[in-house]
Amino acid sequence: MTTSEPIPLVPAAAPPGPARTVYFVSDGTGITAETFGHSVLTQFELRFRQIRMPFIDTLEKAHNAVRRINETFELDGMRPIVFSTLVKSELSTVVRQSRGMHMDLIQTFVEPLEQELGVKSSHTIGRSHNIADSDEYNDRIEAINFSLAHDDGQSHKNLAMADVILVGVSRSGKTPTSLYLAMQYGIKAANYPLIPEDFERGKLPSGLLNYKSKIFGLSIAPERLAVVRNERRPGSKYAALENCRYEVNEAENMMRREGIRWMSSTVKSIEEIATMILQEIKSDKRSY
Amino acid sequence: MTTSEPIPLVPAAAPPGPARTVYFVSDGTGITAETFGHSVLTQFELRFRQIRMPFIDTLEKAHNAVRRINETFELDGMRPIVFSTLVKSELSTVVRQSRGMHMDLIQTFVEPLEQELGVKSSHTIGRSHNIADSDEYNDRIEAINFSLAHDDGQSHKNLAMADVILVGVSRSGKTPTSLYLAMQYGIKAANYPLIPEDFERGKLPSGLLNYKSKIFGLSIAPERLAVVRNERRPGSKYAALENCRYEVNEAENMMRREGIRWMSSTVKSIEEIATMILQEIKSDKRSY
Repeated sequence: MTTSEPIPLVPAAAPPGPARTVYFVSDGTGITAETFGHSVLTQFELRFRQIRMPFIDTLEKAHNAVRRINETFELDGMRPIVFSTLVKSELSTVVRQSRGMHMDLIQTFVEPLEQELGVKSSHTIGRSHNIADSDEYNDRIEAINFSLAHDDGQSHKNLAMADVILVGVSRSGKTPTSLYLAMQYGIKAANYPLIPEDFERGKLPSGLLNYKSKIFGLSIAPERLAVVRNERRPGSKYAALENCRYEVNEAENMMRREGIRWMSSTVKSIEEIATMILQEIKSDKRSY
Repeated sequence: MTTSEPIPLVPAAAPPGPARTVYFVSDGTGITAETFGHSVLTQFELRFRQIRMPFIDTLEKAHNAVRRINETFELDGMRPIVFSTLVKSELSTVVRQSRGMHMDLIQTFVEPLEQELGVKSSHTIGRSHNIADSDEYNDRIEAINFSLAHDDGQSHKNLAMADVILVGVSRSGKTPTSLYLAMQYGIKAANYPLIPEDFERGKLPSGLLNYKSKIFGLSIAPERLAVVRNERRPGSKYAALENCRYEVNEAENMMRREGIRWMSSTVKSIEEIATMILQEIKSDKRSY
């Protein structure tokens, strides 16, 4: 069994002191356990040493996991915290015998749901079960391919098929947001840069004029933009704060003038921006 | 407040009958609540009507959410299931008053953790809090840019900086896997197609020869590959089953001959493939 290296999660104001060890144990990828565990742990201003244990899908691997958790208990002198999403009850029974503090996501919620729904759960691996054949999966792959083909204004072809077209100055967060929309939500997201030539003409790129209702703008604080651009092209005019101020100001003016909805990406994560855009798209579809 | 349209989740063997309504209520993006809820719900061979309610971050929005949940109860004649990740206790107190069945992810786990850790939680929004400034976030953005620049063999530049280089025939899943590795884990993943010219020469693309230890292969069942390619170029030689058999066979032979680790993507999700590759990379780093 291989496990990944610990990934330290150190909140900004984390006090010094020994870190508590946290395990994410799953019979699948462990992404659910880890995503959920992160949300919970960031509520605490403490340092945590986090270790993934995915694909714990046999009794032997479960016993190995218990051994590691118990060794950590001995070493740390504190019981490790164990977030688990083990679907098969024979596996979770084994892991629960370890000396960690158990946060069993499945058992805690599946059993009350069995009562509520009046049926037994299948106790098989959930999320990714048969996912490769599902329509949802194919939609995501198709959306990823679309977003890649329409990254950074590469192609005007099939823009009519886009669910959303992101615009903004270079490095305002368009590409990661487009890819996240595609990968997480199966949204076909094209993106177009707004460049100095557009500001001089005072017009949106002409290929976009027919699709104004699908356009969504991203802006960014000039100070932040300068930092990001300097990482890419240090000391360039492109990265200079004055130039960043000019471009951002022009882009925001253009979006206001053209009646384009936009938001600032400065203090938001990709996930937050993507989810906000999704909400906008969906509420459109409902009202028209 | 806008909420998204319901997304039907219909398992393959879902029986007919009324679908139970499920709400994902969050003061953030709701991605955690939804990802976790999916894992739990797929344990049940039932139909669910799923509705996201992200950004419920004021008392007014919380009261609106309660109203919607109660209306659904009246309409469905069954109580909706509510997965919530409301961090602020004044918001979760309001939402818990609705007539849904409550699965409060935060309260269920945060309170026992406060006891265990001997500190109070901050009760502020977790996951995405300040994420845009964090090193982890910058690593992810940098990895996404790297993976895009090295998609489909576009560039040999900086391959020394890659954490992993995926190879495989066209449409074996390299691109989505590379992007997922970058976006979820901050892994710099390049990818290179194996094409008929490589098979004729009987050698890996020359640009890769110095990086053999980073190469990871993806293969796919020829029958599945033919379906996928036919969607892209219907009736082409490229998509013909016979050609797919030839390419897959040659690619697998080459990977075996060159001692490249590889796996089949046929029945795996992007998340599973990416996590398996991550495990391989990390165990390398540990043993060398």
